[in-house]
Amino acid sequence: MRIESTVRGVRAFVDAARREGRSVGLVPTMGAFHAGHLSLMRRAVADNDVTVVSLFVNPTQFGPQEDFSQYPRDLEGDAQKAREAGVSLIFAPSEEEMYPPGACTWVTVDRLTEGLCGRYRPGHFRGVTTVVTKLLNVVQPDRAYFGEKDYQQLQVIRRMVRDLLIPVEIIAQPTVREPDGLAMSSRNAYLSPEERQAAVRLPQALQAAADLVRQGATGADAVRRALELLQSEPLLRPQYVEAVDPETLEDRSASGAPLVLAAAVMVGKTRLIDNIRVNG
Amino acid sequence: MRIESTVRGVRAFVDAARREGRSVGLVPTMGAFHAGHLSLMRRAVADNDVTVVSLFVNPTQFGPQEDFSQYPRDLEGDAQKAREAGVSLIFAPSEEEMYPPGACTWVTVDRLTEGLCGRYRPGHFRGVTTVVTKLLNVVQPDRAYFGEKDYQQLQVIRRMVRDLLIPVEIIAQPTVREPDGLAMSSRNAYLSPEERQAAVRLPQALQAAADLVRQGATGADAVRRALELLQSEPLLRPQYVEAVDPETLEDRSASGAPLVLAAAVMVGKTRLIDNIRVNG
Repeated sequence: MRIESTVRGVRAFVDAARREGRSVGLVPTMGAFHAGHLSLMRRAVADNDVTVVSLFVNPTQFGPQEDFSQYPRDLEGDAQKAREAGVSLIFAPSEEEMYPPGACTWVTVDRLTEGLCGRYRPGHFRGVTTVVTKLLNVVQPDRAYFGEKDYQQLQVIRRMVRDLLIPVEIIAQPTVREPDGLAMSSRNAYLSPEERQAAVRLPQALQAAADLVRQGATGADAVRRALELLQSEPLLRPQYVEAVDPETLEDRSASGAPLVLAAAVMVGKTRLIDNIRVNG
Repeated sequence: MRIESTVRGVRAFVDAARREGRSVGLVPTMGAFHAGHLSLMRRAVADNDVTVVSLFVNPTQFGPQEDFSQYPRDLEGDAQKAREAGVSLIFAPSEEEMYPPGACTWVTVDRLTEGLCGRYRPGHFRGVTTVVTKLLNVVQPDRAYFGEKDYQQLQVIRRMVRDLLIPVEIIAQPTVREPDGLAMSSRNAYLSPEERQAAVRLPQALQAAADLVRQGATGADAVRRALELLQSEPLLRPQYVEAVDPETLEDRSASGAPLVLAAAVMVGKTRLIDNIRVNG
């Protein structure tokens, strides 16, 4: 497995692979790999001749009060895990490599970024869509892999790829969970033992709400139930629970399935998100 | 020469060419070809094995009061000229092909788009950078060609390509002019004979201002001189004359060469732009 820090180095590697007719997969990450990342990598390795994992803690998707500086970084441990998963190349660029001096170009997706996390993290999705566009331009993969845990991000990127006519197939992988149901997240490492215990209420609340919808309740009923359950856990402060259209992310309070129930909670200083899809 | 109206059709053609190891050039245009377009095409044909010309009157770069509906369209005449220039393929998509239903993704370049034409055409450059990103994604050319007549556009696109790490070389071609000095433009067709005669004052004013800079005057001196000359022609209403840095487009009023003198004037209902570079 190679580790490259420059755009030039990645391009040389990928161009050589493509000249030999080999397919290329990209898994964009911010590192601190957990089983969710590894599931994306294994799927990419299975689908493609060559798998590139980008590892870049992207400053522009963090708000000024957010955890950019504390975000866990462990290139050596990550490289070991990626190698074991069969990854061909890690692209771990510097900030200067991804944002040339004077950079002032942004990719924005309207509408889908307005609700859910977009309301609580202004500028976040602009950072995500801009850096993903750059990564897609560097690697020009046949397929790119994203986790369903970041459900809004996934739909925003699908929309962006379609709108900008980017020649890549976006492939989603299901959320990987701890045995008690908590969604895997690099940010789980921030939690104290008490907070970690309380955090399981997030998937539990979404699960209970999803069951209601399966029994014929509306999105609004489900949201109300999830909020009750979240609020009854004193260590959690819910930011939102919403019932949305699985593709457009428009409000689905008034309807039943199919919909996605998505939520964000603060647990101490840690922000956790999760979602569950209820099919029709 | 082929004419394709779908992204799929262009991709099939370009992919086949690339598999044979052939280089690809792209000339993005809005059609109504004049000698300026043909100069871009001939340069692209000389540089590349395969030249694609896109022909798309892009609605998102026109303001609500602008000339989108009147913009000259002549696919048949254009195809004839492109064929003679050695073009391999014309890509003439529909609006739906370039803007899928529900499209809400934009590419924006800050700073460089604030002054000059950006001040008078809000949203214009967002439309340009968004559609050019799409065209680059469809064709994935080795080189793309733009005229220096649209100087701000050229620098905005250079900045965008650098910032988004798009793997394409941007190649500029000098403005092609009528015998009396008027820059070639599809919009010259809008001019009445009197307006056409008055319009020549635009390149004359910039030329006189550039001469002042060559003799040691500042950008501000040159701008003042150009405005005097433009205002003394009753059929012209200047929008702006600015002296700017050739790359960053920052104000260079206080400095001498190198700079670019750029201007926009209304002649009746027709908006004309021109510029001249004064090297150090």
